[in-house]
Amino acid sequence: MADRVLVPWEENLRNLPEGVRGSVYDGGGEPSGDLSDVVFYVVPYGRTQRVDLIERMPRLRVVQLLTAGYEHVLGVLPDGVTLCSGRGLHDASTAEHALALMLAAQRELPRWSIDQEAHTWYPHYTRSLAGSRVLIIGYGSIGAAVEERLRPNECEVIRVARTARPERDVYGVADLHRLLPQADIVVLVAPHTPETEGIIGATELALLADDALVVNVGRGPLIDTAALLAEKGRIRAALDVTDPEPLPAGHPLWDAPGVAITPHVAGGSATFYPRARSFVDAQVRRWAAGEPLRNVVPTRR
Amino acid sequence: MADRVLVPWEENLRNLPEGVRGSVYDGGGEPSGDLSDVVFYVVPYGRTQRVDLIERMPRLRVVQLLTAGYEHVLGVLPDGVTLCSGRGLHDASTAEHALALMLAAQRELPRWSIDQEAHTWYPHYTRSLAGSRVLIIGYGSIGAAVEERLRPNECEVIRVARTARPERDVYGVADLHRLLPQADIVVLVAPHTPETEGIIGATELALLADDALVVNVGRGPLIDTAALLAEKGRIRAALDVTDPEPLPAGHPLWDAPGVAITPHVAGGSATFYPRARSFVDAQVRRWAAGEPLRNVVPTRR
Ligand SMILES: NC(=O)c1ccc[n+]([C@@H]2O[C@H](COP(=O)([O-])OP(=O)(O)OC[C@H]3O[C@@H](n4cnc5c(N)ncnc54)[C@H](OP(=O)(O)O)[C@@H]3O)[C@@H](O)[C@H]2O)c1
Ligand SMILES: NC(=O)c1ccc[n+]([C@@H]2O[C@H](COP(=O)([O-])OP(=O)(O)OC[C@H]3O[C@@H](n4cnc5c(N)ncnc54)[C@H](OP(=O)(O)O)[C@@H]3O)[C@@H](O)[C@H]2O)c1
Repeated sequence: MADRVLVPWEENLRNLPEGVRGSVYDGGGEPSGDLSDVVFYVVPYGRTQRVDLIERMPRLRVVQLLTAGYEHVLGVLPDGVTLCSGRGLHDASTAEHALALMLAAQRELPRWSIDQEAHTWYPHYTRSLAGSRVLIIGYGSIGAAVEERLRPNECEVIRVARTARPERDVYGVADLHRLLPQADIVVLVAPHTPETEGIIGATELALLADDALVVNVGRGPLIDTAALLAEKGRIRAALDVTDPEPLPAGHPLWDAPGVAITPHVAGGSATFYPRARSFVDAQVRRWAAGEPLRNVVPTRR
Repeated sequence: MADRVLVPWEENLRNLPEGVRGSVYDGGGEPSGDLSDVVFYVVPYGRTQRVDLIERMPRLRVVQLLTAGYEHVLGVLPDGVTLCSGRGLHDASTAEHALALMLAAQRELPRWSIDQEAHTWYPHYTRSLAGSRVLIIGYGSIGAAVEERLRPNECEVIRVARTARPERDVYGVADLHRLLPQADIVVLVAPHTPETEGIIGATELALLADDALVVNVGRGPLIDTAALLAEKGRIRAALDVTDPEPLPAGHPLWDAPGVAITPHVAGGSATFYPRARSFVDAQVRRWAAGEPLRNVVPTRR
């Protein structure tokens, strides 16, 4: 029984290197047949990450994710199997969504939608993104892509990462409390870790100016939801990720004043797919050629 | 009776050059006192452009507008009075609004608002701005500012002006019909002239791909409203300007499928005011010093 790669798209199958066997599993339903010959498994992109299938793949050598996060695989990854993340594939999509959320909030697009529904032409002048001071918390791959998109929009950007990199004008998280009062807009794009959980809580919200905007495209738990609700609209928020998630129908965040919600769709827009497909093609090609893989996650325990 | 300048903001008064008398008229109510000593009139920014006051200013030398358009003054401008426009002051604000409209449409923000109102968490993946081909019709001051904002968003931009400038990759309007079928998004930022009226009509709409997006931040009559309505949602549109304008409550455009409307608010957001105030300061300073004014409109008849 020859080795087999399990890829998520038909296009990947057509692009397999000479001599590599493959089949498609797109995450819908169950994969067909016996999985014991799978050596390279690309976990299909979607809400349900079928990492449970890994235990049916005894000859597995590589798990390729299409998500940037990988916490959900660590518990089921056998020793010696290489794990690769989808880091970078979502950057453009996620940064673009963050920009959309900032612009919509500053230019009051939801208000104009309501007026349109009421057939009301009632102009008034809004905030702008230009001239705003934007604090990016999590100046990594996506954070840098957000900054790039802000530059022609005439914003002042302040960058915060875990560790300060003064030579590149990146502040460490230790400076956060000092920086918050100056921000018009805060963008959260850090991963969810014990250190980032509640990184925006009651204390931090209190340090923000009235009507400051907090945009979260990182992970829901970065914001203390109860503390945000307690602000009762003093702080505006645009949240692509929430805590809890999915947000239950009865949750008060849905109707909280000044809060806009999108259902964790930042990373997965149209621009993600061509990137992801060609990344998978390239990873399989590198693997078949014995070349080093990209995005290898350090998993030594 | 010494000459007087009439400025729209208190800040301008505080910044007057030595020896220049001034007073403030912000467009609310009527200007106080006799206007016969006004030599420099800054028409206050707003819906009601009080150009009718010009006839009460027999010693007038300069009319400074804060709008980019100036058609509304030509009929009442006495011979020999210099007219200056507000060209450039709205670029950042207008280009930013165009970007907001594009992003909101591509990322389906109105849909998420509706879901939020219904407390529904129902993700699906949307279009993106990245990877789109954007045709800018009217590659002038604002058109270039739109392009700048699109560049980090990974769009392909096609530029169209009245006259082709091949050396700068700008197409002439004669190429429009050939270019329309390739566009995912069309942005209109040309002025309203006999040539641009209905520049997007039934023929042009028919040339666009299904679900193409037309964004209008120029002037309402650039689009043939009836032709757009006849598309019945095949083409998406985001309109900051409409024809007629303001849009009457009973107009079918309000409820047209795939059409988003904002009430001519692109140019006037917060970022406009500091620019406009310092431009007025500088123009008055130049005038008092006998230096050439900026943005002089050719009005020789
Ligand atoms: N909404 C969506 O659809 C979506 C899509 C994709 C990703 N995401 C989220 O976005 C996150 C970031 O992705 P990425 O690809 O940009 O990751 P990345 O390149 O690893 O960057 C993460 C950044 O967060 C910083 N960080 C870590 N802990 C921090 C702390 N305690 N305080 C401040 N900054 C901290 C890191 O700082 P150092 O550089 O100092 O380590 C780094 O700059 C992902 O982890 C994921 O949760 C969301
Ligand atoms: N929505 C708002 O709030 C708002 C705010 C400000 C301005 N505006 C509108 O935006 C318009 C553009 O402003 P701007 O400052 O960018 O003006 P601009 O610098 O004069 O640029 C106008 C551009 O339109 C092009 N053009 C003229 N006639 C054309 C035609 N028949 N076909 C194709 N292109 C044509 C010109 O081409 P050439 O270079 O070849 O002459 C020029 O590139 C203003 O006239 C105003 O109506 C709207």
